[in-house]
Amino acid sequence: MVERVLAGDRLAVSRLISAVEDGAPEAESALRALYRHTGRAHIIGITGPAGSGKSTLTNELVKEYRRRELSVGVIAVDPTSAITGGAILGDRVRMLRAYGDPGVFIRSMATRGRVGGLARATRDVIRVLDASGKDIVVVETVGVGQDEVDIASSALTTLLVNVPGLGDDIQAIKAGILEIADIMVLNKADREGANELLAQLRHNLSFSHPEPGEWRVPIQKTVATTGEGIRELVDTVGKHREHLKSSGELQARLRASLEEELVTLVQEAVGRRVRGRLAGPECNNLLEGVLSRETDPFSAASRLLREVYNGQKSH
Amino acid sequence: MVERVLAGDRLAVSRLISAVEDGAPEAESALRALYRHTGRAHIIGITGPAGSGKSTLTNELVKEYRRRELSVGVIAVDPTSAITGGAILGDRVRMLRAYGDPGVFIRSMATRGRVGGLARATRDVIRVLDASGKDIVVVETVGVGQDEVDIASSALTTLLVNVPGLGDDIQAIKAGILEIADIMVLNKADREGANELLAQLRHNLSFSHPEPGEWRVPIQKTVATTGEGIRELVDTVGKHREHLKSSGELQARLRASLEEELVTLVQEAVGRRVRGRLAGPECNNLLEGVLSRETDPFSAASRLLREVYNGQKSH
Repeated sequence: MVERVLAGDRLAVSRLISAVEDGAPEAESALRALYRHTGRAHIIGITGPAGSGKSTLTNELVKEYRRRELSVGVIAVDPTSAITGGAILGDRVRMLRAYGDPGVFIRSMATRGRVGGLARATRDVIRVLDASGKDIVVVETVGVGQDEVDIASSALTTLLVNVPGLGDDIQAIKAGILEIADIMVLNKADREGANELLAQLRHNLSFSHPEPGEWRVPIQKTVATTGEGIRELVDTVGKHREHLKSSGELQARLRASLEEELVTLVQEAVGRRVRGRLAGPECNNLLEGVLSRETDPFSAASRLLREVYNGQKSH
Repeated sequence: MVERVLAGDRLAVSRLISAVEDGAPEAESALRALYRHTGRAHIIGITGPAGSGKSTLTNELVKEYRRRELSVGVIAVDPTSAITGGAILGDRVRMLRAYGDPGVFIRSMATRGRVGGLARATRDVIRVLDASGKDIVVVETVGVGQDEVDIASSALTTLLVNVPGLGDDIQAIKAGILEIADIMVLNKADREGANELLAQLRHNLSFSHPEPGEWRVPIQKTVATTGEGIRELVDTVGKHREHLKSSGELQARLRASLEEELVTLVQEAVGRRVRGRLAGPECNNLLEGVLSRETDPFSAASRLLREVYNGQKSH
């Protein structure tokens, strides 16, 4: 499987991604083996409110990268799919697949279980596409929420898409997730209200004061439906990538992101161990003690941690 | 502080809740001390799509419980507040506060940092209100998503609110979170489409086949704006509470929820320890090894876990 993924075999890639989504044991061993072949692709995150034209924009970006003879993987992530039944993504993915271009690989990912699990699975799927030889991996998320912010944290260049006429959403972006943007995209720039939105975005961005040598978040106008501004957007992504490398920020970001990943992996391992112990009869007294209020959850958790890691001294 | 909270002092309750939200160290010691005074209140979760009238319904429930001379705490949780700036909740809380009734305590909670943190903070705030002597604690969440499901898991009786005319949201509820409902509320039951929605909900519920003695999820029609059906809804909540107790399901739910809490508490403690170690110079080689692809994150996480818990042998 690993060899075939490295050779870019679509079926192998697709199967490994399914294994990753299912948390299958063979996925981890494949990911271990693939890891040293990763780190080549540039990862672009696309996020923004519903109705901002993200999927059309993704479409146009893919076309432009293909014109530049770069291969592209697209991951469309819907953290709300438990609620929407995944219908939104289905449509997008069908649209993108219509190309039939072997240089493009499209995959949708929907919530399975906990949201943290989705962010982690997205990171692993990015690695599979990276190892399979894709030059660019685009991660598009539906909506703007904490989940999307977590998922976008795997991206190296994050595009935050805005459109005129969404009203309060501008306020929303002001309050919340402005800081994750490396490039602001003002999409549907031919619409009424575009100039007001541009002024608003400039105003919002004016509060960040990049030092000399730091990245200054640009605002790129696009009309995704006609392709206007897409070439310039792709150029700006390239400039951001160069900036990340030359400034040393790339290494700093990768390191911070790795630290978070290691914390999560350790916590998962500990969680499995603790759950295993709680399922056994030796924890009955502990649980009963808390339920009857003889002790409290904090004390019980400390005891549990000590018990679980006393058994681990020698191995 | 603990004594004053137990006596129901509003200012002390309010301050402790702020400390809990801030993750202040004095919050944990207070929660430890308060824990044995908890477990008395009945916890009601209210969830459902935007526009389903949840806040009006909460309002009416509060009034009805007050008529029955029960004291009520209300926690309005907005997991999307990082995006909306918390505006939605502000309005609701102002509306509810207008009563000026000393038997009612209202608090809004908004996202601070990670969503997991919000679910945990909600659970702790429920305990504060419980210990302060509130007979009923209502937890109302904005929206229907995974975050809301996590937050609702602290409730003993969960009301899932539906209204006619939201179209696709019915499908949504079908796909996703039906299973968390103990009582289905068909609100705005005087509106067009109410009968179709009732039929749809009955159809959805028909797929669950409760065993004899198990709870059968009822559908309660309400018109929150006129108070219609509210008395019956409160009676149904009471029946559910009785069922939980007499069937032994209460103990099972409390135990399952405690197990999850203990896993989270242990994971948090481990996370702090791992983060502390990663911040020190002894992890530089480990991190560099992964970044340069000499090793992979899974192997690094295993090593990190061993290193962190070798230092813990004797204490």
